[in-house]
Amino acid sequence: MTHPLVEQIVAAISRVAGSPPVPLHAPRFGGNELAYLKECLDTTFVSSVGPFVDRFERELAAYTGAKHAVVVVNGTAALHIGLLVSGVLPGDEVLVPALTFVATANAVAHCNATPHFVDSCEKTLGIDPQALRTYLERNAEVRNGCCLNRNTGRVIRAIVPMHTFGHPADMQGILDVAADFNLTVVEDAAESLGSTYHGRHTGIFGRVGTLSFNGNKIITTGGGGALLTNDVALARSAKHLTTTAKLPHRWEYRHDEVAYNYRLPNLNAALGCAQLEQLPVFLAEKRRLYKKYREALSGVVGVRLLGEPEGCVCNFWLQTLILDDDVAVLHDSILAATNDVGLMTRPAWVTMHRLPPYRDCPRMTLRVAESLERRIINLPSSAILGSEGAL
Amino acid sequence: MTHPLVEQIVAAISRVAGSPPVPLHAPRFGGNELAYLKECLDTTFVSSVGPFVDRFERELAAYTGAKHAVVVVNGTAALHIGLLVSGVLPGDEVLVPALTFVATANAVAHCNATPHFVDSCEKTLGIDPQALRTYLERNAEVRNGCCLNRNTGRVIRAIVPMHTFGHPADMQGILDVAADFNLTVVEDAAESLGSTYHGRHTGIFGRVGTLSFNGNKIITTGGGGALLTNDVALARSAKHLTTTAKLPHRWEYRHDEVAYNYRLPNLNAALGCAQLEQLPVFLAEKRRLYKKYREALSGVVGVRLLGEPEGCVCNFWLQTLILDDDVAVLHDSILAATNDVGLMTRPAWVTMHRLPPYRDCPRMTLRVAESLERRIINLPSSAILGSEGAL
Repeated sequence: MTHPLVEQIVAAISRVAGSPPVPLHAPRFGGNELAYLKECLDTTFVSSVGPFVDRFERELAAYTGAKHAVVVVNGTAALHIGLLVSGVLPGDEVLVPALTFVATANAVAHCNATPHFVDSCEKTLGIDPQALRTYLERNAEVRNGCCLNRNTGRVIRAIVPMHTFGHPADMQGILDVAADFNLTVVEDAAESLGSTYHGRHTGIFGRVGTLSFNGNKIITTGGGGALLTNDVALARSAKHLTTTAKLPHRWEYRHDEVAYNYRLPNLNAALGCAQLEQLPVFLAEKRRLYKKYREALSGVVGVRLLGEPEGCVCNFWLQTLILDDDVAVLHDSILAATNDVGLMTRPAWVTMHRLPPYRDCPRMTLRVAESLERRIINLPSSAILGSEGAL
Repeated sequence: MTHPLVEQIVAAISRVAGSPPVPLHAPRFGGNELAYLKECLDTTFVSSVGPFVDRFERELAAYTGAKHAVVVVNGTAALHIGLLVSGVLPGDEVLVPALTFVATANAVAHCNATPHFVDSCEKTLGIDPQALRTYLERNAEVRNGCCLNRNTGRVIRAIVPMHTFGHPADMQGILDVAADFNLTVVEDAAESLGSTYHGRHTGIFGRVGTLSFNGNKIITTGGGGALLTNDVALARSAKHLTTTAKLPHRWEYRHDEVAYNYRLPNLNAALGCAQLEQLPVFLAEKRRLYKKYREALSGVVGVRLLGEPEGCVCNFWLQTLILDDDVAVLHDSILAATNDVGLMTRPAWVTMHRLPPYRDCPRMTLRVAESLERRIINLPSSAILGSEGAL
C-alpha cells in the first residue's frame, strides 16, 4: 500500500508539471541559437577562437559583475584551473562540501591534492561555517601563514563553497572562517548563475569562481564552463593554462608551461550567447515555478520546499523538496513513484566520503550532509513549467 | 635583397592557392552541418548524451576499422585517457617524438608520468625505429616484464608514435621495437584521419589510438577527439573514465573512481557526423592539391614536397615542404615572406625538449628532429584549394 504522503507528492507535482513524461530539466532554445550557430558555419569559426568566445566572456563578466571571465570546456575544467591559479599545490588539502556533485572533489584530485570534506547547513545546503570553525579550531592551526591540518600534517590551502541547486551558501560566514584560517576561497557557482548573495552575484566572492553550462544547467552551451575573477593576473594565467600555454607569435609554436586544452569552441560559445540573452526570462519562469510548487505543496505535512535564504536571490535552478526526519524513510518510495509515472525526480548526490575514491579522505563529522542526502528530492524544474502559458 | 628561392616559393604557392588572404587551413561546411545542428536544438539534445554521440562513435569505428570508438572533448583528452587505460602510472616514462604538437607531451604529464623524447625519421617525420632500437639497447633493459630506463631507474611503460601532418610513421618498425622492449603502443593519430599504413587505418595498430577534430583538422567538431581500440574492456574503461565514472542507476549519483568530464557534447558530435560524410571529398581534394603543389614546385631546387611513404596512403592534411640543409637558413625568411603577402604558412613545432616545461626530460640524440624543425614549412592546405573548381 502506498503511503499517503507519496500520493500527495505525486499529485502535487502532477498539478504543477502537467502530463508525463516530464523531464527533470530540459533546456529551451527559443532565441537566437540557430542564427548564431549558422553564423559560426558561415564564417567557418567553429573552433577554439572566434567572436562568440570573446563576446560570451565579456557578457558573462558584465552579467555577474566579475572583472574577467574565461570560458572553458566545462565546469570541472573551470574548477581544476581555478584551484591551480589560486595556488593549490600537489599534496595540499582543499575543503569541499561532502554534499556536492563529484566534479568538486574530482577537480581537487586533478590537482594532485586531497579533498577534505565539510558538513552542510540545513538551511542553505551549503558549507556550515559555524561547524567548520569549531572543527578547524580543534584540528588545524595557522603556522607561517599556512593552515596546517594537525592530523595529517598537510597544508589546507583552499575552501570551495558550492551553491547547491542554485541556493547561495552563507558566504559571509565562510569568508570569515577563510580569513581567520588563511584559506583561499574558490567558489563553485556551477549551479548558481543568476543567484545573488546580499546583492552581489555568486561566484565573485572568492579569488576565483566557476560556472557550468552543461545541458542540465539554467543556460547551456552543450558542455561548457567559465572562471570568474577580479584579478587580472589570475585571469591571464587561467587563459594561458587553458590554451596550452602557447606564447603569442605569428607562426611559432612555443609553450612555456605544462598546460591544458580546455578551450570552449566558438560553436558552443555561440549557443551560450543566445542562451544568456534569455536568462532573465528563464529566471522569472523558475521563480514562478517555485511559487506554483509552494502552493501545490502547501497542505502537505512532512516536507518543505527550499526557499531563499535571507538577503539572497535564488535562481531556483532545481526545485528542492526536503523531507522531515520522520518521513525520510519514504525517500526512495517517492523517487520510485514519481519516476514510475514519468515525473522525473532525483535525489541529491551520494555524499563524497561514501564514494570509493574518496572514502579515506579527511573529514569532519558530516551529520547534516548525511541527513540531507537521505531527505532531498529535486522536482521537475524546466523553466517552461513556469512560463505564462503553462498549466 | 630577397633570395631567389624565397621568391620562387612565394610564386609557386600563389599559383596553386590563388589570391591572398589564404589561410593555412580552413574548415568547410558544405553538407548537413546546419541541418544536424538544428536537429540538436529541436530535440533539445545538445549536451553530453544524444543520438549524434552514439552515431559518431559508430561511424568512426566503421570508417577506421576499429572495433570501438569513444568520442571525447578533444585530442589531448583522448590521449590522456588512452595512456591511463593502457596502464601508464604516475612516475612512469613514456616515449614520445620530440617533433610533435605539445599535446602529446602534455597528455603524458597529465598522467603524472614523464615524456622521454625520441628522434624522427627524415622520410616519414615520425619516430625512427632503428635509431630508437639502438638507443634502447644501450640505455634500457627488460626486467620482470618491464622496460627499465637504466639512467633514471624508472619504467618506460609506453610509446606514442604520432603521424606527422597526416604522414604515417613506420608502424611495423615501431611495433617491432615495442614488442622487443615490452612497450605499450598508444598511437597519436590526431592528424591522420584518412591515412592508412599497408591497408589499415592509422590509429588501430596500438592498444589504443586517438584522433582530434580541432578546427584545423581534416574534419572538425569545433573541438573534439576520439579513442579507437579493438579491446572492449579498454573501450568500456575509457567511456567510464571520460563520463565521471558514474554507475548506471535510475536516479542515484554514485561514482567509483576519480574520473573526468571529457564527454563530447551532442552538438559537437552532430557537426562531426556531417563532416565525416564529406571526408572522402576532402581527401580527394587534398590529394589533388598535393599534386598541384608538386607540379608548381617541380622546378624549384633546394626543397622537396613530402609525399607518401611506400605502402602508405596519406590524408595530406597539411602539405609539407622540406628545405635542403644548405638552404635551411632561409626558413624564417620564407615564413615571413609568405605570411607578409597573406599566404599563411607555418613551421613545425618547437621541439619538445626545447620547451621550458620539458627541458629536463630524458631524451636520446635528437639530430634529425632538430634538423627537421629548422627545415619544415607547411603550405596553405585547405581542401577547397584542391577542389575541381579551384584555380
